[in-house]
Amino acid sequence: EIRAQLVEQQKCLEQQTEMRVQLLQDLQDFFRKKSEIEMEYSRNLEKLAERFMAKTRSTKDHQQYKKDQNLLSPVNCWYLLLNQVRRESKDHATLSEIYLNNVIMRFMQISEDSTRMFKKSKEISFQLHEDLMKVLNELYTVMKTYHMYHAESISAESKLKEAEKQEEKQIGRSGDPVFHIRLEERHQRRSSVKKIEKMKEKRQAKYSENKLKSIKARNEYLLTLEATNASVFKYYIHDLSDLIDCCDLGYHASLNRALRTYLSAEYNLETSRHEGLDIIENAVDSLEPRSDKQRFMEMYPTAFCPPMKFEFQSHMGDEVCQVTAQQPVQAELMLRYQQLQSRLATLKIENEEVKKTTEATLQTIQDMVTIEDYDVSECFQHSRSTESVKSTVSETYLSKPSIAKRRANQQETEQFYFMVGW
Amino acid sequence: EIRAQLVEQQKCLEQQTEMRVQLLQDLQDFFRKKSEIEMEYSRNLEKLAERFMAKTRSTKDHQQYKKDQNLLSPVNCWYLLLNQVRRESKDHATLSEIYLNNVIMRFMQISEDSTRMFKKSKEISFQLHEDLMKVLNELYTVMKTYHMYHAESISAESKLKEAEKQEEKQIGRSGDPVFHIRLEERHQRRSSVKKIEKMKEKRQAKYSENKLKSIKARNEYLLTLEATNASVFKYYIHDLSDLIDCCDLGYHASLNRALRTYLSAEYNLETSRHEGLDIIENAVDSLEPRSDKQRFMEMYPTAFCPPMKFEFQSHMGDEVCQVTAQQPVQAELMLRYQQLQSRLATLKIENEEVKKTTEATLQTIQDMVTIEDYDVSECFQHSRSTESVKSTVSETYLSKPSIAKRRANQQETEQFYFMVGW
Repeated sequence: EIRAQLVEQQKCLEQQTEMRVQLLQDLQDFFRKKSEIEMEYSRNLEKLAERFMAKTRSTKDHQQYKKDQNLLSPVNCWYLLLNQVRRESKDHATLSEIYLNNVIMRFMQISEDSTRMFKKSKEISFQLHEDLMKVLNELYTVMKTYHMYHAESISAESKLKEAEKQEEKQIGRSGDPVFHIRLEERHQRRSSVKKIEKMKEKRQAKYSENKLKSIKARNEYLLTLEATNASVFKYYIHDLSDLIDCCDLGYHASLNRALRTYLSAEYNLETSRHEGLDIIENAVDSLEPRSDKQRFMEMYPTAFCPPMKFEFQSHMGDEVCQVTAQQPVQAELMLRYQQLQSRLATLKIENEEVKKTTEATLQTIQDMVTIEDYDVSECFQHSRSTESVKSTVSETYLSKPSIAKRRANQQETEQFYFMVGW
Repeated sequence: EIRAQLVEQQKCLEQQTEMRVQLLQDLQDFFRKKSEIEMEYSRNLEKLAERFMAKTRSTKDHQQYKKDQNLLSPVNCWYLLLNQVRRESKDHATLSEIYLNNVIMRFMQISEDSTRMFKKSKEISFQLHEDLMKVLNELYTVMKTYHMYHAESISAESKLKEAEKQEEKQIGRSGDPVFHIRLEERHQRRSSVKKIEKMKEKRQAKYSENKLKSIKARNEYLLTLEATNASVFKYYIHDLSDLIDCCDLGYHASLNRALRTYLSAEYNLETSRHEGLDIIENAVDSLEPRSDKQRFMEMYPTAFCPPMKFEFQSHMGDEVCQVTAQQPVQAELMLRYQQLQSRLATLKIENEEVKKTTEATLQTIQDMVTIEDYDVSECFQHSRSTESVKSTVSETYLSKPSIAKRRANQQETEQFYFMVGW
C-alpha cells in the first residue's frame, strides 16, 4: 500500500501545480482586462482634457493671459484642473502599460517556472520511488529467505530428533539380557545400531547446516529491516519535503516580486495624483477677490481711471476763485453753513447705524458662503460588510431640501443687505 | 465724456460676469463629463471583479477554504486583489455621484448668484450714475448762470461808465463863461444835467444789483464745483470699488467650497485606495512557502503521513529479534561492518562537497528570484514639460532582452542545481 500512497503524493503535487498554473492564468487574464480598462479610462480622460484645452486655447483671454502668466485666480484653478486630468490620463496609461509589459509577463514566467519545476520534481520522485520499491522488494525477498531457511532448519531438527529416538530404542533393546540372543542376531543388531548412528550423524550435520543458514538469513532480514525503515524514514521526512520544496522553488519569491511591481505602480500613481491635487489645493487657497479686483481694473485702465478734477472756469478775466464773502453774502453763507452742519450731524448718526447693520449682514452672508460644508470623507467609508456602501452615499451628504433652505436663507439676507446698505 | 466712461464700466462688469458664467458652465460640463467617465470606469471595474469572483466562488477550494479562513498565501493575495478592484469600483462610483449631485450643483448656484449679483450691482450703478449726472448737470447750469450774471454785470458796469462820461462832459460844458448863455439855454442845460444824473444813478443801481448777482452766482459755482469734485471722487474711489465688490460677493468663497468638495472627494478616494493597497502589501509580505507547505500537507493527510515502521515478522515462534552473532557469523559481520564504515566515510566527504555546492547554487537561484526589480517609480515622473512623458515608459523599465538573458541565466543555474544536488 506504500506504492499507492506514492502515486497519491505524485497526484497531489500535480494538482498543486495545476492550481498554481490556473491561478497564474487568472492573474494574467485579470491584469490583461484591467490593463484594457485603465487604457480606456486614460483615453477618456485625455479626450476630456483635450476638449476643454482646445476650447480655452482659442479664447482671446487665454492668449493675453498666457503672455504675462498673470491669471485671475479662478481661471488659474480651472487650468490646473485640466492639467490634473491630463496627469491622471498619463498615469493610468502608464499603469496599463506596466500591467501589460511587466506584471503579466512575470505571471507568465512564474507559470512556466512552476511547470518546469514540477516536471523536474516528477523525474526526481520517480527515481526516489524506484529506489524505495527496490529496498522494499529486497526486504520481502530477505524475509522470505529467512522464513524458508528457518522452516528447513525446523524440519532438519525434527528429523534429527526422530533419529535420536530410534537410536535410544535400539540401545534400550540391546540392554536386554544378552544370553537370550543368538549370535547372528547380535551381529545383525550391531550393524543396525551403526546404521542408525550414521543416519543420526548425517541428520545432525544437516540440522547444523540449516540452523546456520537460518541464523544468517535472520540476521540479513534484521539488518535489511533496519535499513528499510531508515530509507522509508528518510523518504518521508526528508525527500518528500525536498520534493515539495523543489516544486516551490522561487514560486513565492517571484509572485512576491510580481505583486510588488503592481503595488509599486499603484503607489506611484497615487503619489503623482496626490502631487497634482496639492497643486490645485494651493491654487484654491489663493482664490482671492482683492488681487483679482486689482487685475480686473488694470485690464481696463480707461474705464476705471478717475477723470481730472473740475477746475474753475473764470468768465472774461474774472479772477476770484475762492468763495467771496462780502457783507450781504456773508450772512446768507453763514446761515447755509449752519444748516449744512446740522444736516451732516444727523446723517452721520444715521450712517453709523446703517454701517453697523450692513457690516453685520455682510458678515452673515460671508459666514454663509464660507461655511465648511465640503468634507465628503464619510462617503468613502468602507465598512466591514462592503455590500452596504452604495446606499449611504446619497442619503448622508448634501440632501437637497437642506441646500434649498440654506440658499433661500442666503438670498433673503442678501436682499436685506442691499435694501439697507445702498 | 464721463458718461461714456460710465457706460464702459458697466460693460466691463457685464463682461466679467459673462466670463464667470462661461467658466462656471465649462466647469459644470467638465464635471458632468468626468462624472460619466468615472461611472463607466467604476462599472468596468465592477464587472471585472464580479467575473473573477463568480469564477472563484464556484470552485471547490473556495468553499473549503472559506470555512476555515485558512487560505494559501497566494490565493489570499488573489482574493484581496479582487476586493481592491471592488473597492476602487465603489469609490469611483461615489466620486461620480459627488461630482453630479454636489460639485456641479454648487457651480450652478454660483453661476446663478453671479448673475443675480451683477443685476443688483447694475441697478445700484444705474442709480449712482443718475445721481452723478444730476450733479454734473447742476455744475454746468450753475457755471452758465455765473457766466450770464457776470456778463450782465460787465455790461451794466460799462453802461454806468458811459453815463459818468456824459455827466462829466455836461459838467465841463457848464464850466463855460455863464454870461454868454441865454436864460432859456441855461434852464435847458440844468434839466439835461439832472437827466444825466438820474440816468447815472439808475445805472449805478443796476450795476450794483448785477454785481451782487454775479458774486452770488460765482459763489454758487465755486461751492458746486467743490461738491461735484467730491462726488466724482467718492464715485471713483469708493462706489466703483463697492460695485465690483457687490459683483464679487461670495464668488471666490463659493468657488473655493465647490473646488474643496472636489478635492475632499479626490483625497478621500486616494486614502481609501491606499488603505486597500496596504492590505494587499501585508498579504504580499506574508507570502510564505513554509506555512503553505504545512497547509498543503495537512490538506492531504493520507498522502503524506509516514507509514508504520516495519516490524520483525518472526517465523513459527522464532523469537530472536536482534542480530545474533555466534562464532561463525561474528567474523563475517565484523568484516561487513568494517567495509560499511569505510564506505560511509567516503560518502560523508563526497556529500559535504555536494552539499556546499548545492547550497551555494540554491542561494544563487534564490538571489535571482528575490532581486528587487519591481520599483516602477520612474515611470510616473512628471517633468516640467509634460509632453515628453509617454515615450520614456517603454524604454526605461524592464527591456525584453535583459529579461530574457536573466531568465536563461536562471534556468542554467537551476539545471546545475538539479544535476549536482539530486
